[in-house]
Amino acid sequence: MAAATGLTRATVSALVDDLVTGALLTEVDPAPRSGAGRPAVGLTLAPDGPAGLGLEINVDYRAACVVDLAGALRHRLVEAGDQRLTDPGTALAALGRLAARARALAEADGLTVAGAALAVPGLVTADGVVRIAPNLGWQDVAVGDLLGDLPVAVDNEANLAALSELGTADPPRDFVYISGEIGIGAGIVLDGALYRGTRGWSGEIGHIPINPDGPACRCGSRGCLEQYAGQEAVLRAAGVTGVEELARAAAGGGTAALSALSALSAAGGALGTAVAAVVNLLDVKTIVLGGSYASLVPWLREPIAAEAGRRVLTAAWSPVLLRAATFGPDAAMRGAAGSVIRGLLDDPAAWLARRQ
Amino acid sequence: MAAATGLTRATVSALVDDLVTGALLTEVDPAPRSGAGRPAVGLTLAPDGPAGLGLEINVDYRAACVVDLAGALRHRLVEAGDQRLTDPGTALAALGRLAARARALAEADGLTVAGAALAVPGLVTADGVVRIAPNLGWQDVAVGDLLGDLPVAVDNEANLAALSELGTADPPRDFVYISGEIGIGAGIVLDGALYRGTRGWSGEIGHIPINPDGPACRCGSRGCLEQYAGQEAVLRAAGVTGVEELARAAAGGGTAALSALSALSAAGGALGTAVAAVVNLLDVKTIVLGGSYASLVPWLREPIAAEAGRRVLTAAWSPVLLRAATFGPDAAMRGAAGSVIRGLLDDPAAWLARRQ
Repeated sequence: MAAATGLTRATVSALVDDLVTGALLTEVDPAPRSGAGRPAVGLTLAPDGPAGLGLEINVDYRAACVVDLAGALRHRLVEAGDQRLTDPGTALAALGRLAARARALAEADGLTVAGAALAVPGLVTADGVVRIAPNLGWQDVAVGDLLGDLPVAVDNEANLAALSELGTADPPRDFVYISGEIGIGAGIVLDGALYRGTRGWSGEIGHIPINPDGPACRCGSRGCLEQYAGQEAVLRAAGVTGVEELARAAAGGGTAALSALSALSAAGGALGTAVAAVVNLLDVKTIVLGGSYASLVPWLREPIAAEAGRRVLTAAWSPVLLRAATFGPDAAMRGAAGSVIRGLLDDPAAWLARRQ
Repeated sequence: MAAATGLTRATVSALVDDLVTGALLTEVDPAPRSGAGRPAVGLTLAPDGPAGLGLEINVDYRAACVVDLAGALRHRLVEAGDQRLTDPGTALAALGRLAARARALAEADGLTVAGAALAVPGLVTADGVVRIAPNLGWQDVAVGDLLGDLPVAVDNEANLAALSELGTADPPRDFVYISGEIGIGAGIVLDGALYRGTRGWSGEIGHIPINPDGPACRCGSRGCLEQYAGQEAVLRAAGVTGVEELARAAAGGGTAALSALSALSAAGGALGTAVAAVVNLLDVKTIVLGGSYASLVPWLREPIAAEAGRRVLTAAWSPVLLRAATFGPDAAMRGAAGSVIRGLLDDPAAWLARRQ
């Protein structure tokens, strides 16, 4: 470490001591000796130090997870329930109780929850106010002190989901992450970094026009992608009530399979049209399918590829690459927890100062 | 200068001497004295030193311009003519003759053409090969040594046009430049820099789907923006043969005005739909209208704003800003010439070495 950083061995020793005391690093069995000198002590990111709390509120569920410094998922709590039936205050109070449960589980493990981040399906301003979340029916909702003493960062769910993909081993340098829930959002990664847009409101792919005279959308416009490939449109067309039922129907046989496959094919066609707009505009090679799309990739892949293949100018010699999100439907809350961990690793001194 | 750079006065003097000898800087009347010491010599970018040659080949014209180091347009040559009627070799030979005329005019002024850049309406690879230009009917065309000894860089016309806008005083930090000719391209500027995409093929906005079942496009797909707002579609709908005639008809009265206004309104609506896709996805605030759109802004502005206003999720509190391209239809060749000048200013030592 001294050789790599150019610091003296004594300085490295002192810094490592601080990080071990602060529970950011843990000593492990030394690596086999190579060469002369004192045996080196092995070090690893502490699995029992600070942890990140990832939260998500979406149209039909709320969720919380705890991820440790080494990136391992330690706890995962998901509660189904239509958030549109409650006002923002009630929904946030329920989320706060879920978050407190996750935090208590983490603390029972000896972890310290160092911070929390919340994924929401809407546009978030820099000060953490949800400016608009059309599918929740929220406007100008301040999330506030959900967890008492613990600060909660708020971000768009597709942005956080894209960050979760960016945190995997060897992610593509440019990709667009499409998160399909009742709403459809996108996280845009260009040159290895999340592209947020001028005001932080990029990625509203659900409102890309697919057919200008199409069905009315909750946003006030017509023919938006959500009306063709949003979860409610797909489930309605398939005649089922949930995504798991849809996947089972598509994998099964008989008339249920026919209408499921037809609904997925239509959704895939609309998604392919939107993907064509994205790729023609941004020239990204890879599209990651997340949210409820992650488990539907076996049936969405072909119709998306076919439509994008027809409509992307460069598709003939460079086909669009489609892949399922690594963390599946958990990507947004995993990305939220990961953003807390990222903050700790980027600025360990701030954490050490807080603990004193 | 010594104070600003931290270099000694002697070093600055020697460097300035090199730049003056190399015709990059010119001494001008000293600024009025302020304080003690030797009177300072005024310096400015040399208007009679190296210059940039900007070239453009488009579907219905070819053009060349000379821009000096101070950014002034010194010569401008435009030849109308349908490039689709000739093979790439013949079209490039004609462009080469036009470029040689522009270069001779520059040399007659005492300028030295330091380099050239060519704007083409298509996808260009990093080695300067035009991979595909659907509206020219070109595929894998190597531009090669158009001008004998003078190197010619090749780039997409909308990218170069966007660079011309970025080179104006106080440009927006994020914007999308839409260049409307027979084809429609876009140059995407994010965080003050051109965003080229993974392979350099970003900005193919002309092939964003507007209506999936719309008219067949030259690209092989259906319902692309070009089929609604490309120059040929608009002129056909208006019953006129050129953009100037269209503008005159729209500004005039009677039945000619009616069909011109109706054609422009339809084109504006389709453009507004594409703008909505762009803004929902990228969250840019400003759209610059260039190419033949630049002179049609008075009639395109309202329908674009109306359609984008309906379809952009954030339009209610942050309307899309529309503006005409600063250099109008000359933007691509101005951007091409400007890219040569930019190269000289970024690396003056390379120019000084070449002159020895």
